[in-house]
Amino acid sequence: MRTRAAVALEAGKPLEIMEVNLEGPRAGEVLVEIKATGICHTDEFTRSGADPEGLFPAILGHEGAGVVLEVGPGVTTLKPGDHVIPLYTPECRQCEYCLNPKTNLCQAIRTTQGQGVMPDGSSRFSMLDGTPILHYMGCSTFANHTVLPEIALAKVRPDAPFEKICYIGCGVTTGIGAVINTAKVEIGARAVVFGLGGIGLNVIQGLRLAGADQIVGVDINDSKKDMATRFGMTDFVNPKEIDGDVVPHLVELTGGGADYTFDATGNVTVMRQALESAHKGWGESIIIGVAPAGAEISTRPFQLVTGRVWRGTAFGGARGRTDVPRIVDWYMDGKIDIDPMITHTMGLEDINKGFDLMHSGESIRSVVVY
Amino acid sequence: MRTRAAVALEAGKPLEIMEVNLEGPRAGEVLVEIKATGICHTDEFTRSGADPEGLFPAILGHEGAGVVLEVGPGVTTLKPGDHVIPLYTPECRQCEYCLNPKTNLCQAIRTTQGQGVMPDGSSRFSMLDGTPILHYMGCSTFANHTVLPEIALAKVRPDAPFEKICYIGCGVTTGIGAVINTAKVEIGARAVVFGLGGIGLNVIQGLRLAGADQIVGVDINDSKKDMATRFGMTDFVNPKEIDGDVVPHLVELTGGGADYTFDATGNVTVMRQALESAHKGWGESIIIGVAPAGAEISTRPFQLVTGRVWRGTAFGGARGRTDVPRIVDWYMDGKIDIDPMITHTMGLEDINKGFDLMHSGESIRSVVVY
Repeated sequence: MRTRAAVALEAGKPLEIMEVNLEGPRAGEVLVEIKATGICHTDEFTRSGADPEGLFPAILGHEGAGVVLEVGPGVTTLKPGDHVIPLYTPECRQCEYCLNPKTNLCQAIRTTQGQGVMPDGSSRFSMLDGTPILHYMGCSTFANHTVLPEIALAKVRPDAPFEKICYIGCGVTTGIGAVINTAKVEIGARAVVFGLGGIGLNVIQGLRLAGADQIVGVDINDSKKDMATRFGMTDFVNPKEIDGDVVPHLVELTGGGADYTFDATGNVTVMRQALESAHKGWGESIIIGVAPAGAEISTRPFQLVTGRVWRGTAFGGARGRTDVPRIVDWYMDGKIDIDPMITHTMGLEDINKGFDLMHSGESIRSVVVY
Repeated sequence: MRTRAAVALEAGKPLEIMEVNLEGPRAGEVLVEIKATGICHTDEFTRSGADPEGLFPAILGHEGAGVVLEVGPGVTTLKPGDHVIPLYTPECRQCEYCLNPKTNLCQAIRTTQGQGVMPDGSSRFSMLDGTPILHYMGCSTFANHTVLPEIALAKVRPDAPFEKICYIGCGVTTGIGAVINTAKVEIGARAVVFGLGGIGLNVIQGLRLAGADQIVGVDINDSKKDMATRFGMTDFVNPKEIDGDVVPHLVELTGGGADYTFDATGNVTVMRQALESAHKGWGESIIIGVAPAGAEISTRPFQLVTGRVWRGTAFGGARGRTDVPRIVDWYMDGKIDIDPMITHTMGLEDINKGFDLMHSGESIRSVVVY
């Protein structure tokens, strides 16, 4: 079949909207009509050429929602008409990682996914002249139709709006999951969130959901304050308005350091501040942000020897097929909010404007509706 | 009263054996006759002047065992004749830290202990001319008699030999505790221990106690192999005999990385290797060693984002008054071994030889018997 897609032809160039060929699903695969997709910083990390592992030409996009159109041989858990969210971290429930309760990093299709191909080693996308186009993060939601492995699709309730729940495919789950799956925040905790963009806001609402007593937001942009307050932030700190180092300021504000701190900036200097703002004896710091290639974090080992713990999280520690449908329910039940974070929607033809809005800081999340 | 002590008069000088004055116990304090004391690297860190927070003149030593001679007003849990092990990490059971199950870092007397004085701000030791001599780590076991707060003494069974159980006051508890309290190693785990000195050997026997399946020891000195094997090591790696980086070698040897790794070297480069030898998804690395002043650890945040956890431990995460008597029982019951690690014993007059043996690498542990 043919479908319409925004194609990243080479690093650093705007995406090009074009018709592409899409082969049908092979064994264990599913054809999905994407109804909506968010535009995430990770897409931009690859599009811009900053990702040293980026491959081109490729169809980017990994934060989508849609409907199953067709299933390949052997697919048993999905059928045409099911509403689904693609998972860049799949859940095979059979590999060493899926069977270890400490991790969500299913490795079943890791190698081929990193190479931009399906598990059998080939791509389903091609140019009209036959040149193969690579998949991206196993999802490629910047195409109106895409093919994914069955293990990389979460089935969700049919009454949830695609243009909102697509955000659960990455940002919402990453932020909320970092709180509940990775940090396992307890009721009454004090927390600090560095960076109040799309991920940081979801960390904040995760903390509210978990019953945190104090939720400090840190951002160098005062304009982030109102939205963060709406999602549950109790204290706002702008490091530019603090005399001296922000770390002692945060330690004092939290009564000795926070029980949990979260970096949602991707800046390694901020990651260190986050660790050192955690409470002596038991404070845990969770890295969510993706740092530039080659960047390193550092601290004095004394920080760890005196009880702080340094962790990271990917996809919020969520097991997608199990956890994503639950988070969709939370949204539909009003336990979490998504609508105010989706500040812009557009058609696929305007997808490059979505990237511009990200760069200018005008958007929290732009969503492409097909 | 007067007692005999090895006094650190100034940084970098040998200890001087001399008679000193010792005041009796004040409210909440206990006079202890020290029967034996180990000589630990931390004593040397201070004696040598490497510790920027070192204070002089002081009576060092923090790994002792002895008998209560006299208790001050208000002391209710100890009486003359009780056998005790001094605790450089006390356990008041009342402070915010003691009441938090995630930490052992009781803060009740932290400030004065760091200043080399008792909780009331004064020292009990002085030169015969009246010049005050400072306490060290709240213990000062390099004196035949010393005074400690009640909360810094663990009462232990009277049939345990002082010259062996003194080692439980630091090295044994630090190593075994890092495994069972900090890492909480499960049966069947794979582990790597960097540094096979006194701490590393106790990590190894802690791993054996916890039921680890694979216990890899790493040391640049082949002569450490036999003793480590005796304590439970299953594989030995000498990084000098490996082609290339030791990390991929260890990852392969452990089938993808270790579930738990431990640094018992104090070398920040090794601390990084320890983290990066931990298994993707769930591996935890625990820093035990004390790094030189100002040294920093670093790594790519990707190591944490893909599921590795970086922790540290102090006194093996043990709550001394609760846990140390249990470890003495384990020794007396034959669940752990100590005797082969105490390679040298000497009188107080030869204590400087103990430091020489540490430097030459001839000893695992030297113990001074009064």
